[in-house]
Amino acid sequence: MEIKEIGEFGLIDRIKRNIKPSNSSTVMGIGDDAAVIHYTDKETLVSSQLFMEGVQFDLTYIDMEHLAYKVAMITMSNIFAMNGHPRQLTVSLGLGKRFKVEDIDRFYAGLNKACAKWEVDIVGGDITSSYTGLAINITCIGEAGKDDIVYRKGANETDLVCVTGDLGAAYMGLQILEREKTVYYQQVEEYNNKVKEAQSRKDTKRFEALHRERSAIDDFQPDFAGKEYIIDRQLKPEARGDIINRLREAGIRPTSMTDISDGLASELKQICGMSHCGCRIYEKNIPIDYQTAATCEEFNMNLTTAALNGGEDYELLFTVPIGDHEKIENMEGIRQIGYITKESLGAYLITRDGNEFELKAQGWPANKN
Amino acid sequence: MEIKEIGEFGLIDRIKRNIKPSNSSTVMGIGDDAAVIHYTDKETLVSSQLFMEGVQFDLTYIDMEHLAYKVAMITMSNIFAMNGHPRQLTVSLGLGKRFKVEDIDRFYAGLNKACAKWEVDIVGGDITSSYTGLAINITCIGEAGKDDIVYRKGANETDLVCVTGDLGAAYMGLQILEREKTVYYQQVEEYNNKVKEAQSRKDTKRFEALHRERSAIDDFQPDFAGKEYIIDRQLKPEARGDIINRLREAGIRPTSMTDISDGLASELKQICGMSHCGCRIYEKNIPIDYQTAATCEEFNMNLTTAALNGGEDYELLFTVPIGDHEKIENMEGIRQIGYITKESLGAYLITRDGNEFELKAQGWPANKN
Repeated sequence: MEIKEIGEFGLIDRIKRNIKPSNSSTVMGIGDDAAVIHYTDKETLVSSQLFMEGVQFDLTYIDMEHLAYKVAMITMSNIFAMNGHPRQLTVSLGLGKRFKVEDIDRFYAGLNKACAKWEVDIVGGDITSSYTGLAINITCIGEAGKDDIVYRKGANETDLVCVTGDLGAAYMGLQILEREKTVYYQQVEEYNNKVKEAQSRKDTKRFEALHRERSAIDDFQPDFAGKEYIIDRQLKPEARGDIINRLREAGIRPTSMTDISDGLASELKQICGMSHCGCRIYEKNIPIDYQTAATCEEFNMNLTTAALNGGEDYELLFTVPIGDHEKIENMEGIRQIGYITKESLGAYLITRDGNEFELKAQGWPANKN
Repeated sequence: MEIKEIGEFGLIDRIKRNIKPSNSSTVMGIGDDAAVIHYTDKETLVSSQLFMEGVQFDLTYIDMEHLAYKVAMITMSNIFAMNGHPRQLTVSLGLGKRFKVEDIDRFYAGLNKACAKWEVDIVGGDITSSYTGLAINITCIGEAGKDDIVYRKGANETDLVCVTGDLGAAYMGLQILEREKTVYYQQVEEYNNKVKEAQSRKDTKRFEALHRERSAIDDFQPDFAGKEYIIDRQLKPEARGDIINRLREAGIRPTSMTDISDGLASELKQICGMSHCGCRIYEKNIPIDYQTAATCEEFNMNLTTAALNGGEDYELLFTVPIGDHEKIENMEGIRQIGYITKESLGAYLITRDGNEFELKAQGWPANKN
């Protein structure tokens, strides 16, 4: 269904129907000039992110539902990274003409799934047309007790550096997706060339044979066998609220924390820079999944570079006092990868063979366009 | 200077240098995963708006500084419309390749000007590239006492309907801007045709004469004489925080309120719909500036239609109990334009000659693309 058939107000009504605020802190959701939120004796956390088609996402890889889930998770991840809890979202959409009402339905289905996972309410936003692609802005609002908030700036000398989950998988998943896209477009190009040739030779029989070939291209199935995990890490990241809850239960309060969106190296530089300290990170301790390693080999890429600079992991990077060493040791899914040093000692990676390399914040290539 | 010369981090540092939070409620601004805000015993208000190049704005009319001022004011206006006070902003920018560092400087100069006016802090946001035009998302966060918040839904039968300032001016300002743009492009087209003709005739003298004409086109000055006010209303809207303060001083608490972004008719329909009531609005009472009226005549447009459906006024529309009639009467810049009725009586305009017309929410044409 075309959006103009139901109009802007009709579209908003349709979206509103499936949104039911569940948080006691949501006083007023969609429907007025602003949302109204009430947190009792808590600080308000706010994080806003913009996602542009062709830059942050490619709709040939990801469908509207996964895309929505991903952008919501990415923004919630920022609130968890402050040791807070996300509670509300606002969603702004700039829609190119090719989008239909059903696309918006799927987008909100994905948003609702992500929000249900962490009991977050969609409380507002904006819908407008766009002359080009899709633009999405998500603002996530959350709460945290004043003394619970963890900034990037709190790391101290001798603190342990920890990461959750494993790194580099989302980046290698993207390599697979890009490869399969290239394979598909090559097939399409080859086919088109054959058709042109047959046309110029007026070869009817060849033409008919090509027609049968065409449907094989239409049925193109990308080859993801054995890559399911890393594809999932690229298309369906999860904000690590579970870790935030488990750290609290274990009585651990990180001294500094951030989520890994631009790659481990870049985030370590942020924490060191803001905490005025250095660090030593052990290459052998960086957690990497088997599929990530196998795919790196296949692509002849350096595994540590993928983990350090790949980005889009949305795992948590944090520091804890050295006294918490044993507690952390016993927690599944958290790896101690190094320690914090004096600022003058710089931020270095210690490789498996004992060499030291200075960490460089390469950032996420998508931001470099 | 090209943005890639200083990179994403360099650009953020440059922006941060000119941003100094001044609100006691801003605990942490730009620089971490999320901003931290502390309001004491207040509700948090959040409003988010997306502005897409070619849809909400046209950079041939408006420069980066005015654009930033405008989008900030529009978003703050939503917080005032809840009878609250804006305190923080987050700003997301999607930048096409043609934008330079100096454009961003000018944009932030405009933002800082708007923020300084209402003591609002820029506390975060996002910068990314865009494959096409400029995309801007502003989220404004504000505060209000629980009992001070005014929703759209609170209007009651016999309440007076009031508007601030005057209406239709921004819309007529846009007509002037569009006319001058057309005049300019016509001159360019005529010139190009003459050049082509001279080229085909190999007429060197004519060519030289045309060259002198060219600089006249480059120096094209749009004709805004006598239209300064309405141009200003289009390019530099002001959020009516002054009215919010004056109503409070006068001891008036509106029963319902919204800001006029989509035109008076559309906003009245919103208030009536959410308050389950009707209204009677007197055409003769709708405040209209002389320049708006004169321009409507020039364009042969209906003045009341411009005021009802033009949009982008960002004035406040509110209702007060009939008992406040005298207090309102004495307040400069506020006009009583009608009253609230039972829902079954519908929403009608009473024209100067005594006819009744049902109000229709036409909305802002820019949203209809």
